[in-house]
Amino acid sequence: MAKPTRLSGFPELLPSGRVIEQYLLDVARQVFELHGFLSLETRAVEPIENLQGGEIAKEIYVLRRMHAADGEADPGLGLHFDLTVPFARYVLENSAQLEFPLRRYQIQKVWRGERPQDGRFREFTQADIDVVGSGALAFHHEIEMAVVMSTLLAKLPIPPAIIQVNNRKLAEGFYLGVGATDTQGVLRAIDKLDKIGADRVRVLLEAEAGLTREAAAKCIQLASIKTPDATFVDQVRALGVQNDLLDEGLNELAAVVAGANAERPGSVVADLRIARGLDYYTGTVYETQLVGFESVGSISSGGRYDNLASDGKQSYPGVGISLGVSRLVSVLIGRDLVSVSRAVPSAVLVAVSDEASRPASELVARQLRNRGISCEVAPSADKFGKQIRFADRRGIPFVWFPGAVQRESPEGDTVKDIRTGDQVPADATKWAPPIDDLTPRVFSTIVTTAVSEESS
Amino acid sequence: MAKPTRLSGFPELLPSGRVIEQYLLDVARQVFELHGFLSLETRAVEPIENLQGGEIAKEIYVLRRMHAADGEADPGLGLHFDLTVPFARYVLENSAQLEFPLRRYQIQKVWRGERPQDGRFREFTQADIDVVGSGALAFHHEIEMAVVMSTLLAKLPIPPAIIQVNNRKLAEGFYLGVGATDTQGVLRAIDKLDKIGADRVRVLLEAEAGLTREAAAKCIQLASIKTPDATFVDQVRALGVQNDLLDEGLNELAAVVAGANAERPGSVVADLRIARGLDYYTGTVYETQLVGFESVGSISSGGRYDNLASDGKQSYPGVGISLGVSRLVSVLIGRDLVSVSRAVPSAVLVAVSDEASRPASELVARQLRNRGISCEVAPSADKFGKQIRFADRRGIPFVWFPGAVQRESPEGDTVKDIRTGDQVPADATKWAPPIDDLTPRVFSTIVTTAVSEESS
Repeated sequence: MAKPTRLSGFPELLPSGRVIEQYLLDVARQVFELHGFLSLETRAVEPIENLQGGEIAKEIYVLRRMHAADGEADPGLGLHFDLTVPFARYVLENSAQLEFPLRRYQIQKVWRGERPQDGRFREFTQADIDVVGSGALAFHHEIEMAVVMSTLLAKLPIPPAIIQVNNRKLAEGFYLGVGATDTQGVLRAIDKLDKIGADRVRVLLEAEAGLTREAAAKCIQLASIKTPDATFVDQVRALGVQNDLLDEGLNELAAVVAGANAERPGSVVADLRIARGLDYYTGTVYETQLVGFESVGSISSGGRYDNLASDGKQSYPGVGISLGVSRLVSVLIGRDLVSVSRAVPSAVLVAVSDEASRPASELVARQLRNRGISCEVAPSADKFGKQIRFADRRGIPFVWFPGAVQRESPEGDTVKDIRTGDQVPADATKWAPPIDDLTPRVFSTIVTTAVSEESS
Repeated sequence: MAKPTRLSGFPELLPSGRVIEQYLLDVARQVFELHGFLSLETRAVEPIENLQGGEIAKEIYVLRRMHAADGEADPGLGLHFDLTVPFARYVLENSAQLEFPLRRYQIQKVWRGERPQDGRFREFTQADIDVVGSGALAFHHEIEMAVVMSTLLAKLPIPPAIIQVNNRKLAEGFYLGVGATDTQGVLRAIDKLDKIGADRVRVLLEAEAGLTREAAAKCIQLASIKTPDATFVDQVRALGVQNDLLDEGLNELAAVVAGANAERPGSVVADLRIARGLDYYTGTVYETQLVGFESVGSISSGGRYDNLASDGKQSYPGVGISLGVSRLVSVLIGRDLVSVSRAVPSAVLVAVSDEASRPASELVARQLRNRGISCEVAPSADKFGKQIRFADRRGIPFVWFPGAVQRESPEGDTVKDIRTGDQVPADATKWAPPIDDLTPRVFSTIVTTAVSEESS
């Protein structure tokens, strides 16, 4: 194998980075399970027709068997680009064996054929929660999604995060109210505000979505409204647009902002610029900013979807929110926002004095492991100084010396804290490291609350 | 979306099946980390040239971007078919930032374009451990792999498992000793013994691998040797073949069988039929049978490889063993060898008497979650009987009634064990379920040790 080259868009973590990612995933799983979400996984592939529709269809990866037999039908499979579309398909396929409303979390890789020069990943890990009903789904779950994600984000060693919420009914009703006929086109244009600015969006709204100059201006004004509470309602009303769907959306968005902030003060803002590029959302939509690191984009997004899982007879409306694990990890690592105590699970290196006594060292290791202490036995019977340096390079805090092999204390084992040099007698059936040393720890390195955006 | 159809070879689990899989993965991770293996993940794709070589190359899935631009170079990527080849590439790519010997575990999906009619999966999950050295790797790790996997298998709710070990040096030395020139060809033929039988393998050995009738017979005799200890050495010697590499292999295999059985009695047998189809192994090879369920094939396989990770200047020899998680889960589910206490994480359903009091129920849930008790709030304020049935259908053992909403006890909350009907006063800041009810449990349904093969 020649020296390999990295593949742009397919990041891989070094061991210390993986400790950070695993920690985030463990906390996510814990929070999701505490809230009664069960775990599911779906296959990585979907029939291509399931992946089409929506702007994202152009970015999927298509599969073929390298040595498909002549005349073998091409199954037309692609890698999934999110976890919502596969989950909706899974619900349809297994509905008879599922209990609704179904609460599930799903932590898997997804793939998108994005241009890597945009700094986007082609393979990344998402951690999703969704609640799906059979025929109907109560609105209160749209509050719940924000509360659960906010609870999770607050437990992670990351800068403060704020969930920005909007509502598709509000936006669509408003667009209808100003005379738009192509509301999806308006939404797509508004979604580009951050990228291309208000002037060019106004041109798009007039030229492509067919709005009048005044209507386009109002749509852009709508998108500028952002409040930490329900006062956005008055600001929208002041624009003088009347529409029943708009009213419904205003009520729902006010309820989400008030409800989520009642449970978790300051967790949610109404932000009427939030559009979400995917076109399957029908109600509440979520994005999430890391305060001080807004330029990295949303780290947690989702929304309500009423028509994604439907076989024509029965529909399964849902609402979900997704944590962008890979994006978050890349920010934490790339900007040095966290550090780890060590990259290996071992709290102890059991020294070996000579190969003949390796079984004695293995016995010590087994005794420690039986009591939940991760350890490894030194790979070679080098001089003890070299074995201590071996532990030190890995961040393993303790080195264990089986007693029979030591001249100074021929009877008993000793254990050395190589950070302090302290060495004490120890019994492998009783000794334990301090709880902080038991497993690798992840620290936030953010020392002040005044986090500011760094140049990237 | 039309009613979807299942994709052959891409199995998906129902929630209860996922509880079983997650339990296996949790135990695997725990055992691996106790033994000092750190976690890594590699990208799902590799350059196709990295995936070629070896018999398996024909079965890879190749990727392309659906809307690749005209003239865009095809990056030539395929999905990985195992976790060893990607790990070897990762080691080469990151060697300067890794500490050796590197102990890592890796739990990921792999993909093979197998014919689904063979009952094989096209997507499945593996849990691998490997130790890789820089330039050299001590032999004792070949014993260690068997010990760690045996330790893991003994902790799982599965039938007894026996690791069958062979050695490529032994086999290759023996084949050279009987006059073979194409030892890979002999190995490939011997690998087919289980599928096509001794007579047809003999034909292959003579016709394709060019062996004499006597040499072919000896190779088949060699493959019939199977002992629970080092007595295989005498049986091989009795065949009268002389070769230095054979001697080395005999010594190594005897050391693995004796060493592993000294730590874990009865865990390992020498089985000289084990060949392993992949051609990168150079020393010890492992397969694993579930006693009574031999027909399902190996549930854990691996081996020593000296030449997989090498850039020409430096080599990184390794040894690894992989647990076939999907295969094992499909056996456990398909043959009803395990059952689960429930499919949802929630130990408690918090009842809701009317939508206005939902926040009071959410408060109870928050108090329970703060103390590590998984719960969910009833999705709708139905009659309590209906809410209890809702919990019952999910296997949630407890229903919590916030006190202010109950006529009988207007002051205090109560909690009901819906299995017994017992209902007692409770305080959400103090009450906890019995430890056995806290999380879903997985039980072995194997009641006798005399497990017998079922017809499939």
